[in-house]
Amino acid sequence: MSHSGKTFHINAFLMGVGHHEAAWRHPRTEEHRLLDVEHFRELGRIAERGRLDSVFFADNLAVGPRIERNAPAVFEPITLLSAIATATEHVGLIATASTSYNEPFNLARKFTSLDHISHGRAGWNIVTSGNAEEAYNFGYDAIPEHARRYERAQEFLDVALNLWDSWESDALELRTASGVFADPDKVHRIDYSGERFRVRGPLNSPRSPQGRPLLVQAGSSESGKEFAARHAEAVFTAQRTLEEGRRFYQDLKSRLPRYGRSPDELKVLPGLVPFIADTAEQARALEQEFTDLISPDYALRQLSGMLGVDLTEHALDAPLPPLPAESDIQGGKSRFTLVKELAEREELTVRQLIGKLGGGRGHRTFAGTPEQIADELQSWFESGAADGFNIMPPYLPGGLTDFVDRVVPILQQRGLFRTEYTATTLRGHYGLPPVESRRFTPIPTAAGA
Amino acid sequence: MSHSGKTFHINAFLMGVGHHEAAWRHPRTEEHRLLDVEHFRELGRIAERGRLDSVFFADNLAVGPRIERNAPAVFEPITLLSAIATATEHVGLIATASTSYNEPFNLARKFTSLDHISHGRAGWNIVTSGNAEEAYNFGYDAIPEHARRYERAQEFLDVALNLWDSWESDALELRTASGVFADPDKVHRIDYSGERFRVRGPLNSPRSPQGRPLLVQAGSSESGKEFAARHAEAVFTAQRTLEEGRRFYQDLKSRLPRYGRSPDELKVLPGLVPFIADTAEQARALEQEFTDLISPDYALRQLSGMLGVDLTEHALDAPLPPLPAESDIQGGKSRFTLVKELAEREELTVRQLIGKLGGGRGHRTFAGTPEQIADELQSWFESGAADGFNIMPPYLPGGLTDFVDRVVPILQQRGLFRTEYTATTLRGHYGLPPVESRRFTPIPTAAGA
Repeated sequence: MSHSGKTFHINAFLMGVGHHEAAWRHPRTEEHRLLDVEHFRELGRIAERGRLDSVFFADNLAVGPRIERNAPAVFEPITLLSAIATATEHVGLIATASTSYNEPFNLARKFTSLDHISHGRAGWNIVTSGNAEEAYNFGYDAIPEHARRYERAQEFLDVALNLWDSWESDALELRTASGVFADPDKVHRIDYSGERFRVRGPLNSPRSPQGRPLLVQAGSSESGKEFAARHAEAVFTAQRTLEEGRRFYQDLKSRLPRYGRSPDELKVLPGLVPFIADTAEQARALEQEFTDLISPDYALRQLSGMLGVDLTEHALDAPLPPLPAESDIQGGKSRFTLVKELAEREELTVRQLIGKLGGGRGHRTFAGTPEQIADELQSWFESGAADGFNIMPPYLPGGLTDFVDRVVPILQQRGLFRTEYTATTLRGHYGLPPVESRRFTPIPTAAGA
Repeated sequence: MSHSGKTFHINAFLMGVGHHEAAWRHPRTEEHRLLDVEHFRELGRIAERGRLDSVFFADNLAVGPRIERNAPAVFEPITLLSAIATATEHVGLIATASTSYNEPFNLARKFTSLDHISHGRAGWNIVTSGNAEEAYNFGYDAIPEHARRYERAQEFLDVALNLWDSWESDALELRTASGVFADPDKVHRIDYSGERFRVRGPLNSPRSPQGRPLLVQAGSSESGKEFAARHAEAVFTAQRTLEEGRRFYQDLKSRLPRYGRSPDELKVLPGLVPFIADTAEQARALEQEFTDLISPDYALRQLSGMLGVDLTEHALDAPLPPLPAESDIQGGKSRFTLVKELAEREELTVRQLIGKLGGGRGHRTFAGTPEQIADELQSWFESGAADGFNIMPPYLPGGLTDFVDRVVPILQQRGLFRTEYTATTLRGHYGLPPVESRRFTPIPTAAGA
């Protein structure tokens, strides 16, 4: 049953009542549960029942286009995951947070707090915030340039890593008799002084169970891939074909040795939006039900944002107009190219493109039986395109329940997925070694890079 | 039994394993519970069993002096309260957060998220962060000037109030049939442009149950009192004598009409550190046990910080050296004056002063029987010095349990405190009306003030 003993990883990427943009309108969801923290705690418990590695909540620091058509996230991810932490015992808890619009001291602290609360299950999806609407909420007239955002991210992470190492793991002594609370020789100022940040430290919290959160990244631009190769331990990525998936996987893994890292130190998890039913025909019909609920005006606004071109007056049954070059895109570069190439390769009209994107905003949608979905995952895993998967249920909780109760048992039978948790931390689930508590040596300031 | 039907309010100000700086060394505490989120969730449940209005966690964005002697808070308050929210149903949840070292969009969002998670129980203790150590973690070489910090706080709050009003309460429509998610005419940009902040809005979350968190304030300097009179709905304050308490109460309440507010719209809650035992003598002996565990070297560093004077080489059995004027203090002005006046009035040596301050860093300590403590609270309430109390248990959970199980029943019998919750929100507990969802009208920018 075992495939050379290798098993893969599963993250559940959760969003409101489902990833499909029309999920809240479909009878399989209860739209008011968008506002109900118990809905999300229940999702955490379902993921844990399936022995999933982690759950993940993305974030945007602005409402999206066309508020009349679709939802912002009601909950901020770190507070939400804190509430989910107390409803679960094993599943990892990953939150998006922005390096462009936070202070490193505050964010390092929040993840340390979440890691303490969850006993070692915190993960950080590091984003640079690629939407202009976000920039307007933080004093900018336009989105900061792509390269500048990544420079800031690099320096931000340097500060955070220093802060997380500012308490050695055995610094806390708690000797009640002699009154020694902590060993001052094991709690360090970081005296960080870079281009953007000056932070003295130490962090105002003892080292957390994992030492720091699992570092996750999801941008697939050139800068994004380099950043991931240097720092990330898991990467969420949108790959639409097995061939593209393999190419991305090999590309990313080949970059790690440059940073003194082994390819195993980074897990690649392509996204999949699964529509699951007893027969393939029923699964496709279910997907079509959701597609039929998409509001074209809303989808056009979303597509305009992704492509950096105003399509709101564009004919639905025509192909895309000429698009700018990726180098001119200041928002998310890799998503731009993915959508552009999809439309070109499959010669799609705008209406067809909208349908393809509705499930997961560019991520691959797959409609099939539980067996077919298991086959698909196995094939990607065994072809060297994935270390695991970022499962994006189109509707919730049903889409997650079906995956956990119908697909996971097949993967377990095939020896591809764990049947019990064998680790206690998120890092452990992903097969990563503990972060060593190192004798503090400040990381050199990343001057200009 | 009723005192003209008027009852008072109780907040439990919680800190680690107790407010007394030596709490972690005393056999009544288990020092490792500092790191245990279940300890804090249990405290929330105990407070709720006592029908308390709220629990409160303070915060500092830096470790304190002498890490070998005492503890930073392990948990960041908002993440911690999110975890407590799911263990409780009624009790209010108040967190300190800084206007000097956050972005208003992020903080407004976090409190909205906590208010959604707790179904209307979030409160914000607005602080400007008065310690130099905090400034060093956010790019400053010295603490920003007191007046500048309050100017920023004013503008920060203007932005946050605008953001909280950016979603009208009935903006969310969730009409599944027609696909109308929200009414765009009820979701507003704020287009705020001030001296320090430019924020477009709207907030990226629908209006929360309370509309916004309860606004709490705890600085008693002149700027602090004006800020409180303008904005605060509850004030935590350190008052050591009934006479001082009455003067502060009258002073603060008299300032409200200037801002078009009635005195009832702000609740004044002086702090009290209660040592509770069967006899007054036992209570005093218990307090002495804690005092005996204070490390003088640590206390001297703390006192040096409060007074802006280096006392670490000062003789313990001598009086204080000459002190600067309050106008020269850039940190917490009111705490400086409280400590200075206490030492002068009672002609204390440094050692005696340290003992007096050990329980609650300047807050009033009272050792007595449950009846005596109830008498003391009743006397302050009926003398016009308090609308309620900020109870600071010196050790936890025992000090909170004793207060809830032994003092609260007496207050209830006397008709001074609720026997059941009659409201569902934190604002409701404090007898404050709901925040009206107003048709959005931007607040004029506070230019330079």
